[in-house]
Amino acid sequence: MGSITVKGCDDVNVVPDPDDVPKRRRRRLLSVDAILGAALALVDENGRLTMTELATRLGSSASSIYHHLPGRDAILEALRDRLGQDIGPIPVDQPWDAGLATWLRRYRDAFAAHPNLIPMLTGQTITDPAVLASYEQVTGMLLRGGFAEDEVVLWLSVVDNFTLGSALDLAAPDDVWLPSAPAGGASPTPRMDAAVRAAPRGRERADAAFELGLTALVAGMRAHLDAAADNG
Amino acid sequence: MGSITVKGCDDVNVVPDPDDVPKRRRRRLLSVDAILGAALALVDENGRLTMTELATRLGSSASSIYHHLPGRDAILEALRDRLGQDIGPIPVDQPWDAGLATWLRRYRDAFAAHPNLIPMLTGQTITDPAVLASYEQVTGMLLRGGFAEDEVVLWLSVVDNFTLGSALDLAAPDDVWLPSAPAGGASPTPRMDAAVRAAPRGRERADAAFELGLTALVAGMRAHLDAAADNG
Repeated sequence: MGSITVKGCDDVNVVPDPDDVPKRRRRRLLSVDAILGAALALVDENGRLTMTELATRLGSSASSIYHHLPGRDAILEALRDRLGQDIGPIPVDQPWDAGLATWLRRYRDAFAAHPNLIPMLTGQTITDPAVLASYEQVTGMLLRGGFAEDEVVLWLSVVDNFTLGSALDLAAPDDVWLPSAPAGGASPTPRMDAAVRAAPRGRERADAAFELGLTALVAGMRAHLDAAADNG
Repeated sequence: MGSITVKGCDDVNVVPDPDDVPKRRRRRLLSVDAILGAALALVDENGRLTMTELATRLGSSASSIYHHLPGRDAILEALRDRLGQDIGPIPVDQPWDAGLATWLRRYRDAFAAHPNLIPMLTGQTITDPAVLASYEQVTGMLLRGGFAEDEVVLWLSVVDNFTLGSALDLAAPDDVWLPSAPAGGASPTPRMDAAVRAAPRGRERADAAFELGLTALVAGMRAHLDAAADNG
């Protein structure tokens, strides 16, 4: 399970009697934490985020939300920032292959609990300074590993894509492929059935696939480096 | 752009005067094609699919929809089937590596136009017979290539994850990372800035990353096969 650290929004609706509370105190009840908690809950539950639904959920108004975060894009970037905090610092002291693997394992874990958030975040430009700083450090790790400057962004895209796809896979049901159970007849998919029976299920399958794919991808990246060195 | 071949639903709302049309004719106005077209439009626009919203869009009732497709899961499986038709037949006559690459390129293209559909489809068990038959053929291709039966499902997961992540990436904005533009000061992300300037942008970046990652992944799979052969 992901560990994104935003507070729930349930308390926000328990607004004290306005006459009992000074104006400044009341406004502070709607915090960035509460907004992000409610936004993430809407994304998780509904697969979408609108300012209207967010305001309704918070028992507040869109303009009150704007006072803290200037719009939907800013809320999504703030959620990206929180996920980046869950991922933690880039292991810059490790060699590129070990460092990449450590980063990508944490990256998958952080996104896995929020599959609906993934298309929203891949759909907008990364502007959060802390997340950009993390990519700066991964860039440094890849450059020190010998990757060409003009290919670094492509490799970042490759590992992002593999990791986000793998995060979605963690939200998959225990059986990704329905085991064929024909009534008395031969299965139309006998090789697939045998492969499914021979493989782990559920979380175990997703974890084993991620590690197998990560190993293969890093091996392929190493082969690419070696080939470039031979040609240079 | 994806080429999923479902008819639009605009015509469905133009229901002729009931007195002019026999009952059977009226029922057939709500077709599977119309339901799937409307469902895909809802997914694309809203990032979610509810039977209530689908009925509203079709100017129909949930029970009329159920007459054609028994519920939300069945609708999503039917959309999976249509995407499978767009992907086309598995190139079973090619060696595993070339066949896999051909399949995955078409697979990415088919899903790229519908990023919101991706978490919905990865979130439910694949039961569509035609899609299962495609996986049966890919399984055969991998087995003939020498992959162990108990690892086939893991490799299917790996290539699914990479390809779906790459399909999401096709929906990314032209600039994935905001180029730092500090006012007079030094950039906080100088190496990332240089890498972004040296890389292609937009569709060209996504395409180049997909091909680079596909080559690396296939090379890593080949290395895995070679290592298994050495150990066997």
